[in-house]
Formats: sequence, C-alpha cells, structure tokens
Amino acid sequence: MLSIREDVPILCSGNGESVIRVNGNSASHEMDRLKLINEIKEQRDVIRKLQDITPPNIEILKKEMDKLKELKSKLCRTSAPVDDLDNEQVKLTLKTPKGTRDYGPEPMVLRKNVLEQITSIFKRHGAQTIDTPVFELREVLNGKYGEDSKLIYDLADQGGELLSLRYDLTVPFARYLAMNKISNIKRYQVAKVYRRDNPVMSKGRYREFYQCDFDIAGKYDPMIPEAECVRVVSEILTSLPMGDYVIKLNHRSLLDGLFESCGVPAKQFRTICSSVDKLDKWEWQDVRYEMTQEKGLSEDIADKIGVYVQQHGHKDLVEKFMQDDLLKVSKPAMEGLAAIKLLLSYCDIYELTDRVIFDLSLARGLDYYTGIIYEAVLTGDRRKGESVGSVAGGGRYDNLVGMFDPRQRNVPCVGISIGVERIFSLIESKLAAEKTKLRTTEVQVYVASAQKDLLEERMRLCSYLWKNGINAEHSYKKNPKLLGQLQYCEDNGIPWVAIVGESEIAKNIVRLREVSTRKEEEVDRNRLCEVLKEKIQSTTSILQS
Amino acid sequence: MLSIREDVPILCSGNGESVIRVNGNSASHEMDRLKLINEIKEQRDVIRKLQDITPPNIEILKKEMDKLKELKSKLCRTSAPVDDLDNEQVKLTLKTPKGTRDYGPEPMVLRKNVLEQITSIFKRHGAQTIDTPVFELREVLNGKYGEDSKLIYDLADQGGELLSLRYDLTVPFARYLAMNKISNIKRYQVAKVYRRDNPVMSKGRYREFYQCDFDIAGKYDPMIPEAECVRVVSEILTSLPMGDYVIKLNHRSLLDGLFESCGVPAKQFRTICSSVDKLDKWEWQDVRYEMTQEKGLSEDIADKIGVYVQQHGHKDLVEKFMQDDLLKVSKPAMEGLAAIKLLLSYCDIYELTDRVIFDLSLARGLDYYTGIIYEAVLTGDRRKGESVGSVAGGGRYDNLVGMFDPRQRNVPCVGISIGVERIFSLIESKLAAEKTKLRTTEVQVYVASAQKDLLEERMRLCSYLWKNGINAEHSYKKNPKLLGQLQYCEDNGIPWVAIVGESEIAKNIVRLREVSTRKEEEVDRNRLCEVLKEKIQSTTSILQS
Repeated sequence: MLSIREDVPILCSGNGESVIRVNGNSASHEMDRLKLINEIKEQRDVIRKLQDITPPNIEILKKEMDKLKELKSKLCRTSAPVDDLDNEQVKLTLKTPKGTRDYGPEPMVLRKNVLEQITSIFKRHGAQTIDTPVFELREVLNGKYGEDSKLIYDLADQGGELLSLRYDLTVPFARYLAMNKISNIKRYQVAKVYRRDNPVMSKGRYREFYQCDFDIAGKYDPMIPEAECVRVVSEILTSLPMGDYVIKLNHRSLLDGLFESCGVPAKQFRTICSSVDKLDKWEWQDVRYEMTQEKGLSEDIADKIGVYVQQHGHKDLVEKFMQDDLLKVSKPAMEGLAAIKLLLSYCDIYELTDRVIFDLSLARGLDYYTGIIYEAVLTGDRRKGESVGSVAGGGRYDNLVGMFDPRQRNVPCVGISIGVERIFSLIESKLAAEKTKLRTTEVQVYVASAQKDLLEERMRLCSYLWKNGINAEHSYKKNPKLLGQLQYCEDNGIPWVAIVGESEIAKNIVRLREVSTRKEEEVDRNRLCEVLKEKIQSTTSILQS
Repeated sequence: MLSIREDVPILCSGNGESVIRVNGNSASHEMDRLKLINEIKEQRDVIRKLQDITPPNIEILKKEMDKLKELKSKLCRTSAPVDDLDNEQVKLTLKTPKGTRDYGPEPMVLRKNVLEQITSIFKRHGAQTIDTPVFELREVLNGKYGEDSKLIYDLADQGGELLSLRYDLTVPFARYLAMNKISNIKRYQVAKVYRRDNPVMSKGRYREFYQCDFDIAGKYDPMIPEAECVRVVSEILTSLPMGDYVIKLNHRSLLDGLFESCGVPAKQFRTICSSVDKLDKWEWQDVRYEMTQEKGLSEDIADKIGVYVQQHGHKDLVEKFMQDDLLKVSKPAMEGLAAIKLLLSYCDIYELTDRVIFDLSLARGLDYYTGIIYEAVLTGDRRKGESVGSVAGGGRYDNLVGMFDPRQRNVPCVGISIGVERIFSLIESKLAAEKTKLRTTEVQVYVASAQKDLLEERMRLCSYLWKNGINAEHSYKKNPKLLGQLQYCEDNGIPWVAIVGESEIAKNIVRLREVSTRKEEEVDRNRLCEVLKEKIQSTTSILQS
C-alpha cells in the first residue's frame, strides 16, 4: 500500500508554488476520485445482489470481488484513503452495528402488542417462564449447531472465562435443565439471540433478533406434547394478521432411515440433511449439485433421495410410504412414519387438519433434533412470487440435556420457536401501507395553563393527579402558550386537557377540555380525579368496541 | 510449569511393578492432594474477604495472593493439574458465566411484577419507550465512562466491525438521539447492561443486570425536568415494599467550583470527583489517603475539600454555602447552588421535601454528567449496620448527544436509572423469609379423565377451552390416574378441574371441581366455557381483595 501511495503528488505542501500546482490538479483529481467512489458503490451493489442469489455462483462472485478490489486500489492511487469512502455519507460512529437496528416508540408499540399476544397463548397452555444470561460459557454452545457454529458471536478474551453470545434459546434451556436437575417443565421464553449471519434486513432478518420459544420437557406418551406444540403455533399464527400458513411436519428417523436405505454413509447423514433442508429455497437440481459435487455423494444415491424428498401430502402419503419397498425394510423409517401418523391423528382432534402438511423435504439445519421436526410457513402473503419463508420452527431433541449432565441423564424435550422479527416486519409494512399511526404514550390528561406564571399551579395539579394514579403531564416550559399546549395534545392523541387560569384558581375549579370535540366543562378541583376516572373508563371502552 | 511436573513420578505406567508402587503411594498422595485443595479453598476465602474490605489493603492482599500462588504450585508438584480443583465440585460446563445467574419461574414472577410496577409509573409520566441493540460499535462507548471503561465487555474480532456490549442505557440513548436527529423526547427503557465488575452477588449485584431508565431530552426551563425525575424515583420507591429511602442531590458545577476554589488542578477534577464519590462507603480518612497518596493531591487542598464534602442538609445548608467566602467567589459554585435551591423549591411542590437531601459528598463516577446529579439510597433496611447502597442514580448530561453529532449539536438531557437487581434481591429474600410461594402459571382449569382411554376426549375438551381463550391444560400421559391429576392441581394452585368419565360423556356433561373446597357440580358441556368465565372472574376478584 505504502509503495503505491508514495507515487502520489504531495497534496499539502508548505510552499506557494506547489500549492498552486496542487490546486490546479485538484479539481480534475477530485472528479476522478468521485467517479471512482461511485463506481465502487455500484460494484458493491452488484456483489450484494449476487450474494442474495441462492445458491451463489462462487466463480462469478469472485470475479466481481476482484473488480471491486481493483477499483479500491485505484482509489488508493489517487491518494484518498479508502476509509474516506464511508465518510462521504455519514460519520462512522453514527450507526448501529451491522445487522442490527434501533426500535423507536412506534415499532415498540407494535412489538409489545405482538409479544403480548404470543405470551398470552403460551400462558393459555399453562407454560411458565425463565430467563438465562445473554452469554454462555463457550463450551456450552460448542458442538450443538453443526454447520451453523461459525455464526456464533464470541466475546473477547479479557481474562477469565471464554464466553459466547447465545445462538438460540434451546441450548441454554437444556443447560438450565441439567444444571438444576429439572425433569419436567413446560416453559416459554421471549428473548433475543445473536447470529453473525448476512441477513436481508428488509425481510425482517437481523443479527440480533427475538425468539419466542415454547418447550415441553419430560418423559410422556408419544406425540401428545408434539401435538400441543403444533396447536400453539397454529393459535399464534391464526391470532396475528398475517394471512394463511401451513405447518410442515417431518421426522428425523424417517430421514435417517431413508438416507440409510438409499446408501448414504452414516457420517454424512447430518450434512445431507442440511442440503435437503434447502429445498424450500432451491430447486432440486441445485440441491443435487451440492450433494454430489460439493459433498461427494454418488449421483445414483442423490437421485434415489430426490424421488422421496420432493413429495409432500397428508395421511395418504404416510400410508403410501409405509408400503414403500425401500422404506418398509428400514426400522427407523417405519418408526418415523408411525410417529407422523399418530401425530396427524392428534392434529385432527386439535382441529389442525387443514394446517398441517407432511413434507419430506423438511430437514431443519440444527444437529440436536432427534424426532418430529416442524416448520411453519406463510402462504397467503407471497410477494413477487417468492415465499416469505419460515416464521416458526422446532422439533424434538431428546439427547441435548444429557450432553450437559455429568451422568448423561437425558430429559426428553420438544418445542417450537416463533421467528417473531419477520412477523413484526410484515405487520410493520402493512401498517405503513394503511398509514395507521400508533399512539406511543398513555397520557390521559394534560395540565395546561391559560396565563403566565402558573408553573407552580400546574405542578401542584400534576402532583395530585399522579398521586391518584392518573397518567398526566405538563409543559417543561415556565410560560408556555396555551395554543401550543393544546396543539401538543392534538399531535400526541392525548384525550383530555385540564386548564388552569387566574379565574379558575379563584373559583377552585379547572376547565376540563375534551381534545377530540373541543368541548369544555368546569369541574370542581376536589372532584377532578373522580370525574377523570369515569371519563377515562368510558373513553377506553369506546375505543375498544 | 513443565520442569516442575517432570519431577513427578509417572502415575500411569504399563508394567505391574510401577503400578503397585503408584498404588502404594497413591493413598497418601491423594490425602496430601485433598489437604492442599482444602488449603487453597480456604486461602481463596481469605482473599475474597480481604477484597470485600473497602478500601482494600493492597499490601496484605498481595501477600495473601502470593501464598495462594505457592499453594497452587505445590498442588502442581503433586501431579494433579490445577484445573482438577474445579472438577472436584462440579463439571465445568454446568454453570452460568461468572457474575450471572438464571431466573427460574418464581424469581421471574417477582421480576415481572416489579418491572411492570416501574413501567406503569414511567407511563404515568407520559414516557414512551425505545430499544437499542445489546452491542454498539466500540467507538460509541469509548471515552464516555472515565475510570470505569475497563469494565466494558468487548466482542471478539471475528472480522467486520469492532463491537462492545452496552455498559449502560444512557450512551446508546444519546447515540440514538444524534443518529435520528431527535431534539425532544421523554423515554423510558428497561433492558440489561453488562459490566466486567467483581460484584457481590448475594447483594443483588451482577455482571449482567437490568436497568430501568427514564430520561427527558430537550431544551426546557431550569430544574423542571430535574424535579420530575426526582418525583418519578420517589413514586417508584414508595410503591415497592422496600422501607424508607432518601434521594441525595448535588451539582457538578458546585463540585467543580469547590475544587477550583480549593486549588485542585483542572485536569484532576474528574478523578478527585471519583474519590469524593466513595464517601458513601469509605471514611474520610481513606478518601483523603487516596487523594493525597495515590492521586498526588497536596494535603492542605484535600483538607479544604474535606470540610465541605462531609456536609449534607436541606435549604439552610444551601443558604449557608451561598454566604461562604470560598464558594461566593466561584461562578460555577454559585450557579450550582442556585440550581439546587430552585430544585429544592420544586421538590416542595411535588411533595418530596422529606425525601430529598442536599449532599456534597455525592459525586457519581461517570464522566458525562454536567449539572444536577442524584442518587437514591435505602435507609430503612440496613443490615449489620451497613447500607444497602444506592438503588437509583442519575443526573443531567448536556454534552453527550453532541459527542455523536457531526456538527456537535447538543440535546440537553436529564435522567434517572433504577438499579432494579438490588430491589429484586431485597424483595426475594423478604418473600423467602415470609415463606410466600408465588404461582408461576396462569392455568385456570385442568382437564382430567376419570377412567382409561379418554385421552382424545380430554384433547377435544382442551381444544374447545383454548378456542374460547381459557387457560387450560391436561396430562401428557395417555392414561393418568385421577388422584395424580388432582394432586397436580393442588400442587400448582390450579383453581378448577373439569373431569370427564364414561358417565359424563354419556350425559354430555363434565364434573367441575373447585380445587380449594373439593366441591363438585355437573355442568352441561355446551355451557362449560360460559360457566367457567363467570367463576374465573369471581375467583380473581376474591384473590385481589
């Protein structure tokens, strides 16, 4: 780098002549520089678009990356450090970390509403909640996530324990069960998890995001907890304004039995599982390519698998597979099919028949699943032909707790996780399209003054309202104008204003104004709280109906 | 290390003779080892106790640390790796990171109640809420926390941006204001922050802990927002079962003016501030020692400061200082005193007279305060003579937002932060002492079966209850015993049981049993939801009264 930059003419020289020369050059130099910066930005866009394509074409991507590098080094040669590129737009510190965002008051209202809705359904099913730290000992997370482990955020080694941010809520939950020797619990947890992914933020995918988990731990009879998990997902998705959805079902043993019967080497089960799981986004040809060219599976094995994993259906498909020559001889496959059959019959009782699909392409990326696996996808709200993707997923993981127990005692578990960020993002754009404005405070009455020098009077009135549990505020200015105070109430949707002035004080009353109708009435100061509480109650019930 | 361990006899040898010799040695060797391990544990306790003394005696501490090192290296020489020390007690993975804890269902119920109480008071004062990511660009946090910066958790450099976990909610809030060009907002935020401290966990101090912040940003008239912050703290502490408290007040300008008048060099203002702030835990002699011996302040300057910072009082003390010869000539000191005087008068109007104390020893550690500073301490619940310490703190920070704005535009801010972990911990031990058991689920009715083979009937009934928004559960066993099901309800405080059996099904009814009285009645199946909703309503109101 340095050797390149030494060729560059010195821009800031002490003597007059060279300054003039520099200034002379500077205009065209600046033009070149801006042109280059623009080219770099465009090239970055090209690469970003290429990265969005699944599966990415590595060769083309590499070629475009080389082009970007070349442009950058050209920019270096024009003497401007590459860092300047970002300074062109905004000071570096003024952003949130990559893949994260702030939530302002309006998105927070929406988020709170959605999370409360989900939580109320978890509670409807009798779940209790726990909380675990945002980071875990690194060894707790090691070896639990398969190919995704590279996405874990590590904390810097500042002396002491090696820590990582949680990647999901399931592994910490299993650690909690083992550590506290708990063998039975139905728990929910709503908390943020962290993944160093390269997500498309416009689709509601982030590096920091909420998960809403519901899990049933304990040794119980087959498929009864599994059925309740499906029911919980269904109640949640039905209760939110998201359009239609289906819940896909499959079983890890069926996949393992299928792979075994097709001749996949045992040590490749998990990685072939990962490939199969991509069928919701990729064509079979691309999945087949990954299996055979990248993972070295023989072509005839891949083709055998392909026949099965492209099928989905209902009870009839389960029956058909139960008679299938290749699957019939596999014990794990037949166990998986029997489980799916039983689960589908329970789903009928729970009135979920139209919601569930048995889908052999569903595989789930994570290593720890051992039985039934689920995934819920939205079907009603496809845009530009592409699926919104999964909004919930989960499954049975019977061996995870044992990995933490000194004596390998297992606690069988099954659970689901709601991917709530995509739900926020869908409802957010829906509200934006409808131009719905959400109220972000809960102020019930604003205390305004009609003349100067009434700050203390306003403070006294607020003090009295607060003491009586009424949500109230007043201006932080000593002498605000009445019109400004009333405008503030209209802008912020505050329903009532209590106005005090010289004459009101003399009569020991306040003027109570309804903001929406601008109607005013005189209320005895000592009765203000009583009157307000009545009005607030009736206002609320009108808004709710 | 290796050279020491090479002296050690080989414990695991292939030939018989040496095994016998090893076994012969092994018993006494094991005894020595256990003795050493015990000594190390005791020595660790000694050091822990020494570290708890404030200010710590560094010399003694160093001597005891050396002793520990010596014991550890002795243990090495007995051939057991030091790591084994921890294995003696528990498998390494089975813990949460140092300074953190899990919250089980019971603590969660308490925590939720306390946080909702606090949030409802923030809303009573018209605040809206926001959320920011748990980590920030490292440069956002740099240079904001003075001597405490060493406690910031950094994320590992895994390529990309350099990140750190948030240390408080104030700096991210200021970054948010600058980034979104917001000049007016009253916001609250309830979220976790991270500090690599060595906290005493039994006192409710952790490395991961909740803060509940309330801040008023905007250019307003003096002391009006400050007074509301005091009022908010007071409403919160009054509403929680924590005993008496006081809210200490001081002003950074007064401290700066005092330091200047006493002759403290300007560049030492902040570090002398830090020393003064320790007066709530240390004796003046120890603070004086730190100022003069560790920070190099001359003794006569320290003594001059000492006269002032050991005083606290009310309006009369402000008046006295306003006439003080040393302070009278300092413009910042007089400005600070005038501000305190005005704030105290507003506190009178907000009915806080008995709650506030003007305390010149209050200094607050953080660099960013520029005006009034607060701290609330519990006074009613002292144990063993020591103060429970601060449960809330805050102040004015007018220059923080400007540090993030490209044009240094400032947004004046003032706020308070509730240290809610100590509050949890106090209420938790109070409940434990009273043996109060909190209910951790909200199940309203349990669906039980009186005979075998009624699983599907139970599922159908639950499905019907859930659809009607009733919190219900049933056993995940196919054929649970009736007694076990009823016992479960008693253990978990579930108020109602809906029992189905062959005869009930034939009559299209359920037997509805009240768990507390064991009274049963027959209810028409189609009317079950209706009947339950009535009963649940009356149950709730009885519990509340």
